[in-house]
Amino acid sequence: MRRGFASDNNSGVHPAIFKSMMNVNQGHERAYGEDPYTTKATAIFQDTFGADTEVYFVFNGTGANVLGLSTLTRSFNSIICADTAHIEVDECGAPEKSTGCKLLPVKSMDGKITPELIEPYLNGFDFEHHAQPKVISISQATELGTIYRPKEIRALADLAHSHNMFLHMDGARIANAAVTLNMNFKAITKDCGVDVLSFGGTKNGMMMGEAVLFFNPELTTYTKYFRKQNMQLFSKMRFISSQFLAYFEDDLWKENAIHSNRMAQFLKEELASLPQIEITRPVEANGVFARVPKEIIKPLQEHFFFYVWDESKSEVRWMTSFDTTEIEIREFIMLIKTLLKVD
Amino acid sequence: MRRGFASDNNSGVHPAIFKSMMNVNQGHERAYGEDPYTTKATAIFQDTFGADTEVYFVFNGTGANVLGLSTLTRSFNSIICADTAHIEVDECGAPEKSTGCKLLPVKSMDGKITPELIEPYLNGFDFEHHAQPKVISISQATELGTIYRPKEIRALADLAHSHNMFLHMDGARIANAAVTLNMNFKAITKDCGVDVLSFGGTKNGMMMGEAVLFFNPELTTYTKYFRKQNMQLFSKMRFISSQFLAYFEDDLWKENAIHSNRMAQFLKEELASLPQIEITRPVEANGVFARVPKEIIKPLQEHFFFYVWDESKSEVRWMTSFDTTEIEIREFIMLIKTLLKVD
Amino acid sequence: MRRGFASDNNSGVHPAIFKSMMNVNQGHERAYGEDPYTTKATAIFQDTFGADTEVYFVFNGTGANVLGLSTLTRSFNSIICADTAHIEVDECGAPEKSTGCKLLPVKSMDGKITPELIEPYLNGFDFEHHAQPKVISISQATELGTIYRPKEIRALADLAHSHNMFLHMDGARIANAAVTLNMNFKAITKDCGVDVLSFGGTKNGMMMGEAVLFFNPELTTYTKYFRKQNMQLFSKMRFISSQFLAYFEDDLWKENAIHSNRMAQFLKEELASLPQIEITRPVEANGVFARVPKEIIKPLQEHFFFYVWDESKSEVRWMTSFDTTEIEIREFIMLIKTLLKVD
Amino acid sequence: MRRGFASDNNSGVHPAIFKSMMNVNQGHERAYGEDPYTTKATAIFQDTFGADTEVYFVFNGTGANVLGLSTLTRSFNSIICADTAHIEVDECGAPEKSTGCKLLPVKSMDGKITPELIEPYLNGFDFEHHAQPKVISISQATELGTIYRPKEIRALADLAHSHNMFLHMDGARIANAAVTLNMNFKAITKDCGVDVLSFGGTKNGMMMGEAVLFFNPELTTYTKYFRKQNMQLFSKMRFISSQFLAYFEDDLWKENAIHSNRMAQFLKEELASLPQIEITRPVEANGVFARVPKEIIKPLQEHFFFYVWDESKSEVRWMTSFDTTEIEIREFIMLIKTLLKVD
Repeated sequence: MRRGFASDNNSGVHPAIFKSMMNVNQGHERAYGEDPYTTKATAIFQDTFGADTEVYFVFNGTGANVLGLSTLTRSFNSIICADTAHIEVDECGAPEKSTGCKLLPVKSMDGKITPELIEPYLNGFDFEHHAQPKVISISQATELGTIYRPKEIRALADLAHSHNMFLHMDGARIANAAVTLNMNFKAITKDCGVDVLSFGGTKNGMMMGEAVLFFNPELTTYTKYFRKQNMQLFSKMRFISSQFLAYFEDDLWKENAIHSNRMAQFLKEELASLPQIEITRPVEANGVFARVPKEIIKPLQEHFFFYVWDESKSEVRWMTSFDTTEIEIREFIMLIKTLLKVD
Repeated sequence: MRRGFASDNNSGVHPAIFKSMMNVNQGHERAYGEDPYTTKATAIFQDTFGADTEVYFVFNGTGANVLGLSTLTRSFNSIICADTAHIEVDECGAPEKSTGCKLLPVKSMDGKITPELIEPYLNGFDFEHHAQPKVISISQATELGTIYRPKEIRALADLAHSHNMFLHMDGARIANAAVTLNMNFKAITKDCGVDVLSFGGTKNGMMMGEAVLFFNPELTTYTKYFRKQNMQLFSKMRFISSQFLAYFEDDLWKENAIHSNRMAQFLKEELASLPQIEITRPVEANGVFARVPKEIIKPLQEHFFFYVWDESKSEVRWMTSFDTTEIEIREFIMLIKTLLKVD
Repeated sequence: MRRGFASDNNSGVHPAIFKSMMNVNQGHERAYGEDPYTTKATAIFQDTFGADTEVYFVFNGTGANVLGLSTLTRSFNSIICADTAHIEVDECGAPEKSTGCKLLPVKSMDGKITPELIEPYLNGFDFEHHAQPKVISISQATELGTIYRPKEIRALADLAHSHNMFLHMDGARIANAAVTLNMNFKAITKDCGVDVLSFGGTKNGMMMGEAVLFFNPELTTYTKYFRKQNMQLFSKMRFISSQFLAYFEDDLWKENAIHSNRMAQFLKEELASLPQIEITRPVEANGVFARVPKEIIKPLQEHFFFYVWDESKSEVRWMTSFDTTEIEIREFIMLIKTLLKVD
Repeated sequence: MRRGFASDNNSGVHPAIFKSMMNVNQGHERAYGEDPYTTKATAIFQDTFGADTEVYFVFNGTGANVLGLSTLTRSFNSIICADTAHIEVDECGAPEKSTGCKLLPVKSMDGKITPELIEPYLNGFDFEHHAQPKVISISQATELGTIYRPKEIRALADLAHSHNMFLHMDGARIANAAVTLNMNFKAITKDCGVDVLSFGGTKNGMMMGEAVLFFNPELTTYTKYFRKQNMQLFSKMRFISSQFLAYFEDDLWKENAIHSNRMAQFLKEELASLPQIEITRPVEANGVFARVPKEIIKPLQEHFFFYVWDESKSEVRWMTSFDTTEIEIREFIMLIKTLLKVD
């Protein structure tokens, strides 16, 4: 199918990653992660994030978030997040079902939450009638394409820790954030006080696979059981870990994310000349949100599939990917111009 | 790593299946199963099992079983299975956690359960103090390498249906069963009254991926939500469905399963000349269970990894796979002879 | 202990109710509700609400709410309620834990929610990534002491039903609402489209015991199992049902609620002369919310225990009860005046 | 209704207990256990079981068991019990639903389990595919009316502790056991290594109410949240604690249990002269199990209600209670004789 702007998971697999999977496809290996490729991939994460990082590979992003949250909570806890968070709106209630916890969605304008916004929810501690706040969860980049600055993350971590809580980061697009901030992974996560990170690969050129990273080994006494019981333990694990081997080789992750972000900027710039189209959010990662004339949405979608974000506002979401090309964007813009009858 | 006899999921991916995955790795496709390959794979299942078959692809076997059981039950139900069933002993309590149901393990000698064994558990219907029996779950082939005959399955289905219950089949090794019985898939499942089938691919040459098949579309009103909430919805779904395309092409599944079963028979035959080793279970699929002298287990495992099944009886499990070779088996037997000091 | 204004459940049991419990304390009765008193209490509810009302007695309010919600939902559903709702803030996450559902708290100024406030949450239907909205839950009277008018309830029921959803009412203080509205129970619940009602007794003079009422018998196929599995099935049930017998005899419920509401009005009127104290919510049931000078809170609590509602605003909650007396209120006002140094 | 032999919870409330409830029914008290009567009842338990005993009052036996098990486990654990245990057969799956754990029912002939019977289930430790054994749960007296001796309990505790597991006791009929053993409560529970005890009151003359006792305070960090989230926190708690005040006053519990046990012995003795009736279990507490001619069951039940225990064996269960009288037993025996045409 033609490349579109629906989602970064509509793309396929980067060739180098595919090749790495093929390379490990010989002979037998112990299943469930006791193979040398998984050992190697784990070591890379520990090189990147620090030797005491605990690494758990899982199938998908929802599985990663739930595994992290299961490890951090008991059923009577609550989890504070943005009202736009993936865990709140896109996981069909998996966090509640699996952990038993209450999610407390905080109204956010830009997909980010702040200590000020969170404060009103930090009450009822020690009061048995009230679900006990235990986790602040943020997405980096956010679902609205915005990015937390390190000091913003630090502030949230400090707030969490001062209440004996944890800071969880849904890093489905952590690579896009890292290249925008021009910082390494550790600097924008562990060094800012993040306790648990869902490190995403699928949306940046992998086939499937996320790594849940715990920066305090004391947390993970039971994590392996939660992974199995949550149906996230892959038997032929080498086919996830081999992907991460390629992902980190020669900083492929960075190349992919830089490209993807650049394409979003390019799209944004090309749209700038069209007054009929209004960019509605800061473009900081690989997503462009725009208000467009209602009548062009359907004809546009027929050629380049994408999702309407907020029907009431005629706001759409265009995601770029590691394999988006300038040509496709130019064709897309041309089609928009035709539909808008702009020459 | 050298091929061993630890498990059929220690093997890699069949080359034709890998090639099929590569073939679909171009351009963008809608995520979450709305792509043409998934449509095609679904059609193949419907050709094979009947047009009204509902097909849900998931990541792994535990996920498949839980999705089927979630669809069939409410939290106050009970699920009857063999005490050796994968759902009872190998899924870390995932069925209980996800469905809330009670599992009722029935003592079985050969991995199979019968109406006679099940009858004592069929009580307390309509009595609110008692978890309500709703599902009989069987494995085909069983975890002990045995196989249900069609009339045995039919009898269980009739028993289930006469109590307004369902018959669930964990078909992680359904291909091995089909070739042993020399019957097609439909004849040994739907035609025998099975309501829901976990159709396994991973243990017979696929990378990952199972299909949960529902033979009554009325059951599946909510299945898509359970799949998502259970973290089993794959975004880049084409990389599961493309595997099934290759799996069914030229009956690759059959070729793999025939080979794997034949290797188990070969291993069994080669062992026959060794009186020190006793085959403990009928060899009907791709597993060989044997009682071996305790002192040779560790040295054997160093060269060919495998699991001890029952330490108290010095009973081991040797699994063959689609890629097991006669040469490996001969080497294995030679090593056994050496360790036994048999010439 | 001296009567205070902490909560209507700090009071004891109305003597007539206690007497009724004693009357049934002779001989043996079948347990778990198969006794004649429970039959009789059920009949009274059916006389009151209509013959097709299904009645399930439970221990407490949280149990009642969870039983209703368990009956109405599957784990992938969401439940919409006010951000002040008991199910959202006072049940330690019991609804999420027991049902698996997501709660969607709607920002409300007066404890009430409206179709307009709810509309933004009614989306994502049929989209498997999104928890499916299934229940609108309201409290009558609300946790802020306000009361829904019948047409407001009707509008919410119509909204719910037009989306194939249910309207649930937490009627922990339904008696207080009925007497304020001067209407019978049926007119303000079933006749307005309520599907399930938690009918509370504990806060209006009973020892313990709530009745969960279902106005559509088709809903309750499995309710008896949910009650047992949720640990809400009382063995010596006659000691709940006998309370309801007294509760309805000579409209004791009404007498109690009228008194309790009148005491709240009396308290409000007595406070009117004190400009230092600001009534912050409409007084429509048996709760008075007020902003009071911070320095008098602790000394006041020493003599008449009550809770601070919102520390940041120095807002307190004073609840009256069926046994509150005018003399106690006068003493309370006198103490306030002394503390305020008003003569 | 005439007293029967259906269950010890078909009886009413002992007058002294009722009186104690009435005595506390004056004025207001803080809700949820912060009242002086609850403080006093707690102190009595601490006097009885040791000062470091943590006491949590709940509504009913299922709630008590679930609260104890919730405190001791995580969702990936398993709980070992007799196949006749209340938690296995009479709680509609509440333990699985609430804790997520797997229950492992051990085949038992007399309702008791032994280290020998349990050993085969103590495997798979540290293996993530396997639900991790964490609790051995026993009933005292058992559901078959038998009683564990102190050294039997000690052996189970030692076994549990040697595997880093806990020993849980369902003491719904702990009083009957104590009087049979002629030992105090502490000697047959805490002193034998029991970690958590469901201390039952309802079946021995109380209206409702059980106490969950934890003999190691370190276990109970989160217990108060589990009680609330499991819907077992009573608002007007004084009406449970006051019952326990009477229950311990002048050893009322002992008087009741002695009587109830004695009535079972009396019934057993009276039956001895009837060769048509075979006592099938040791009569050690207040239950008599007997095989009776099928044709007399229904006519007997019409006058004295009771339950058939095992229809296939024509085995019935007759329970005596604190209020069973010799006269009733004589009438019962006379009726049996009439039906058997024995003079």
